[in-house]
Amino acid sequence: MKVGVLTSGGDSPGMNACIRAIVRVGISRGQHIFGIHGGLQGLLDRHISTLEARSVANIVHRGGTILTTGRSEEFRTTEGQKKAARILREEMFDALIALGGNGTMQALHKLQQYWDGLIIGLPGTIDNDVYGTDYSIGFDTAVNNAIDAVDKIRDTAQSFDRIFLIEVMGRHSGQIALHVGIACGADVIAIPETKTDLDLIAEKIIAGKKRGKSFAFIVVAEGDEEGDAHTIAQKLSTKIGEKCRVSVLGYIQRGGNPTHHDRILATRLGAYAIECLLKGVSGVMLGMINGELTATPLEETFTKKKPIDQWLFSLVDELSI
Amino acid sequence: MKVGVLTSGGDSPGMNACIRAIVRVGISRGQHIFGIHGGLQGLLDRHISTLEARSVANIVHRGGTILTTGRSEEFRTTEGQKKAARILREEMFDALIALGGNGTMQALHKLQQYWDGLIIGLPGTIDNDVYGTDYSIGFDTAVNNAIDAVDKIRDTAQSFDRIFLIEVMGRHSGQIALHVGIACGADVIAIPETKTDLDLIAEKIIAGKKRGKSFAFIVVAEGDEEGDAHTIAQKLSTKIGEKCRVSVLGYIQRGGNPTHHDRILATRLGAYAIECLLKGVSGVMLGMINGELTATPLEETFTKKKPIDQWLFSLVDELSI
Amino acid sequence: MKVGVLTSGGDSPGMNACIRAIVRVGISRGQHIFGIHGGLQGLLDRHISTLEARSVANIVHRGGTILTTGRSEEFRTTEGQKKAARILREEMFDALIALGGNGTMQALHKLQQYWDGLIIGLPGTIDNDVYGTDYSIGFDTAVNNAIDAVDKIRDTAQSFDRIFLIEVMGRHSGQIALHVGIACGADVIAIPETKTDLDLIAEKIIAGKKRGKSFAFIVVAEGDEEGDAHTIAQKLSTKIGEKCRVSVLGYIQRGGNPTHHDRILATRLGAYAIECLLKGVSGVMLGMINGELTATPLEETFTKKKPIDQWLFSLVDELSI
Amino acid sequence: MKVGVLTSGGDSPGMNACIRAIVRVGISRGQHIFGIHGGLQGLLDRHISTLEARSVANIVHRGGTILTTGRSEEFRTTEGQKKAARILREEMFDALIALGGNGTMQALHKLQQYWDGLIIGLPGTIDNDVYGTDYSIGFDTAVNNAIDAVDKIRDTAQSFDRIFLIEVMGRHSGQIALHVGIACGADVIAIPETKTDLDLIAEKIIAGKKRGKSFAFIVVAEGDEEGDAHTIAQKLSTKIGEKCRVSVLGYIQRGGNPTHHDRILATRLGAYAIECLLKGVSGVMLGMINGELTATPLEETFTKKKPIDQWLFSLVDELSI
Repeated sequence: MKVGVLTSGGDSPGMNACIRAIVRVGISRGQHIFGIHGGLQGLLDRHISTLEARSVANIVHRGGTILTTGRSEEFRTTEGQKKAARILREEMFDALIALGGNGTMQALHKLQQYWDGLIIGLPGTIDNDVYGTDYSIGFDTAVNNAIDAVDKIRDTAQSFDRIFLIEVMGRHSGQIALHVGIACGADVIAIPETKTDLDLIAEKIIAGKKRGKSFAFIVVAEGDEEGDAHTIAQKLSTKIGEKCRVSVLGYIQRGGNPTHHDRILATRLGAYAIECLLKGVSGVMLGMINGELTATPLEETFTKKKPIDQWLFSLVDELSI
Repeated sequence: MKVGVLTSGGDSPGMNACIRAIVRVGISRGQHIFGIHGGLQGLLDRHISTLEARSVANIVHRGGTILTTGRSEEFRTTEGQKKAARILREEMFDALIALGGNGTMQALHKLQQYWDGLIIGLPGTIDNDVYGTDYSIGFDTAVNNAIDAVDKIRDTAQSFDRIFLIEVMGRHSGQIALHVGIACGADVIAIPETKTDLDLIAEKIIAGKKRGKSFAFIVVAEGDEEGDAHTIAQKLSTKIGEKCRVSVLGYIQRGGNPTHHDRILATRLGAYAIECLLKGVSGVMLGMINGELTATPLEETFTKKKPIDQWLFSLVDELSI
Repeated sequence: MKVGVLTSGGDSPGMNACIRAIVRVGISRGQHIFGIHGGLQGLLDRHISTLEARSVANIVHRGGTILTTGRSEEFRTTEGQKKAARILREEMFDALIALGGNGTMQALHKLQQYWDGLIIGLPGTIDNDVYGTDYSIGFDTAVNNAIDAVDKIRDTAQSFDRIFLIEVMGRHSGQIALHVGIACGADVIAIPETKTDLDLIAEKIIAGKKRGKSFAFIVVAEGDEEGDAHTIAQKLSTKIGEKCRVSVLGYIQRGGNPTHHDRILATRLGAYAIECLLKGVSGVMLGMINGELTATPLEETFTKKKPIDQWLFSLVDELSI
Repeated sequence: MKVGVLTSGGDSPGMNACIRAIVRVGISRGQHIFGIHGGLQGLLDRHISTLEARSVANIVHRGGTILTTGRSEEFRTTEGQKKAARILREEMFDALIALGGNGTMQALHKLQQYWDGLIIGLPGTIDNDVYGTDYSIGFDTAVNNAIDAVDKIRDTAQSFDRIFLIEVMGRHSGQIALHVGIACGADVIAIPETKTDLDLIAEKIIAGKKRGKSFAFIVVAEGDEEGDAHTIAQKLSTKIGEKCRVSVLGYIQRGGNPTHHDRILATRLGAYAIECLLKGVSGVMLGMINGELTATPLEETFTKKKPIDQWLFSLVDELSI
């Protein structure tokens, strides 16, 4: 079988471990694996090269993606999708594995209409907002990067008795914010999935100060309905009567060596993708749900909304008394 | 309810996050939480103090355990166990929560015979060898510590074309070794659960060198049946005809700030422990299996053997071609 | 001798190691050391407590400052300065050691007019903009924090072929930017000490892309005369015709465990401060210049401008060909 | 000028940053730079390739050495040295820059007898035992790696009230041990340069415990005259009457991304090497002493002994009261 692999959308730590597993398990089981460089646009531009076992040496521990990634305007058009299908046919591919987030799954879903090769999606995004897997590749690393950063800021917050707002990634999802907030002992977590009540938050911070809390942490998902961290900080500063500091963690969440968890998840999903292809599975995104490897129809992955863990979220108030 | 909390056996990163959750959720639900310092021996010595919400401020991110831990010879005797029960009665405790590994669960099981308060165990050990939970508190941090170390050694291995044996913790269990090995792209993983065939390993390393692999990694659990890393290195050096280097990771695996995963798991289990006590649950160890919070009778946790993930283990050969 | 110690201005990693050295070497040489909590305002509020050898246990490796810090409006007034002197007399202090940056040295200089006890300043600021020492306590940690962050962002920059602007601290000084830029292989370093020519920079980036450079890094000191990173990015995006990404590192630079270099420097300066006090030295800031412990009159430390290393700065263009 | 570059002996973090500076500054100043792969043996085997500006892209932050290194038996013989000289002549090299430790400087000194090209040595070794520079490339990273490890072990030591011996690198030198010991607040530092008195140490530990110190750290250089950490631990355990734990840090000290300090030092020395070659300087090792770039005759670098900082060493007892 001739199998193409590409990474699309934002890069996420663990993508390399996943590519490595696809290549090596693929080769070990007699398949021919080809890298498509630069995401979907790379496919349209035929940036394709053979991947040998040695091509993926010494990458299991590296962040980013050796295949590079990118966003493609051309692929958004029906023209582009048909062209991609034509290229896949001309290059005689039997199967395509693509790592990415919601946008990538949507793209694969479109591609299915014009190409009848086997198509498998793998969830690679730090946002963890893809339905069909408990965790996406890169999420654990992103959260660990964020908590390392918050642990550092904590030293200053503590030394200064300050109120800090930490903005983490998540335009439509509070997954990172929720996990960072719980892991760092945030007093408040502001996410798009729930109503953010600034008056209530101000009251809570003031009450905490009175109870002897020396500093306060508020973790904000960038997509919160009350605005980004700078906006919320301004509003809260007025309400509390004390300047709130802001730190936007930004790109550092995305980088760095992947964690244990992401490397293992990536390796499992990569190996499983080969096993699924060999069984003729297609049109699905693979994932892990409750410890089991699963396959979810591509369409569901971007039409269904992944819920946040309500129980965990509800604990924030109790944990920060 | 008067609830005692203690940590026993080796410390593990995340214990503090768990203690914090127990204390704050406990207080928030009207309970009185007391810390027993120094493990089971601390109970026998009545090292007990009230834990307030502020007592557990700024510890969610710290490794180790603020309650300290220890091993107790006295508690191993029937005398000691009866004394512990008497003290719990005299101090008017209604419930006891203990964090630890197999030894701790065994101790709680003994204690049940002499004390009729509510008893809950929580799995806190880096070894992840306790039956009744997918992951124990501290395991993820330990594995991440180990892979950070291996990533560093990799620089030298690569610069030198060397064969390296890395010894990780696990006297009776290959859990850490398996995860570190997969996450670091080990060529070989030697664990007590499976037969370690040194001739086969030597052949594999030699064949890899011939195929162009520039260096080789072997991850060894300290309890492998062929011996520790130094012993195995000596045998392999002879078989391969090249000096194998050894690094024993040791205590660095146990320390450091807990990871995201361990802090969340610890927080969940701590909060759940309070919820279970309020429902009258007793005689169990709480855990998470396939994403669900679970309760396993204490006796099962140390009599049943936690299996390793055979599929993951079987991938090692394919992943290191 | 009764010696007061305080930390003032922004906290910087290594302050704790310095406090520890002052306390222990002080006690070991027969002195009585007292902590003044909350900076100069803490002095005005008489937040003073004895520091014993055990008070500074387990802090050598912690960021922040156990004495906490703060900015004091009151001390800026002559009234406040006289009050501080009166309190120092009433509390019978013989000497005062203060860690901080330029503002702190200015404050000590003022205090000299009203109090005749021994006064020693120690350079504790991540900005490294104090004249009278090659490095201030905290600078090395801040730069290492920043390069860790940049190394992470590099993964994404590389995966995406992007232009990145990294804003580091330094309102009046390019010290952090220069060191981060050289250490991370920046293509351009924009600092307040030198003219930043955006046309030239745009040309350079475009030329680099043509020569095959896959991505570009620009390190910007927050106080550059062309504006902060967001402002510069906007201007450059237009000139280059490609969106430039921005990451503001912010508070993470300030936190975290101090590095080897900062702990040693802090320990040396703390011990040396005691030795100097015992010799009756006063009115100076201690530092290390060219490997030698030195004492610079307080006034010079904030009136003289610390130069950047021109040779190092001049290498940037050659290093990024 | 045709300039060869090689790395020899153990690899050290920062070597890549140095190679990058040599290549890019060299090219920028019109020179032709060639990499010799695999150390001195690589020269004997003519493993030589051109280094372009792009050859050293994205390595400034990587540990290890892209040129790889190795030890060469052949070069130890007069035959080998003459052969190396012959190859350098045949390949028309004008100059050779070699990074390494004492052994490398000795090798360059030998080579001078048979080859009249320009020869420059650069100190690249984590041990910091080369005379002629305050710090060698890699030392700061190694010490920071070690203190990170010790900070982790501290969590366990604290939780358990234990005595810990940490063995760090340094067969003939206590430089790493001294810096790690001071930076981590060790109670005792055992190094080859000073007499290690186990009775005195035992007394000190016992007295510390009595004074309320909850745990003790002893940092041991592997080359201490009383033996390695395991040997010393055994002797001390008997004397103190309590089991001393041992952690041998080993190879993790050598790896990982270089620190700020090492990258800057490496960059400076690499650029300076080119400047020196262009001035016809030869037969020296470049270094930095008291903040100044210096050149020391090769012979002095391995015949003179680099002293440890006696004042710093003398502070240990006072700092650990």
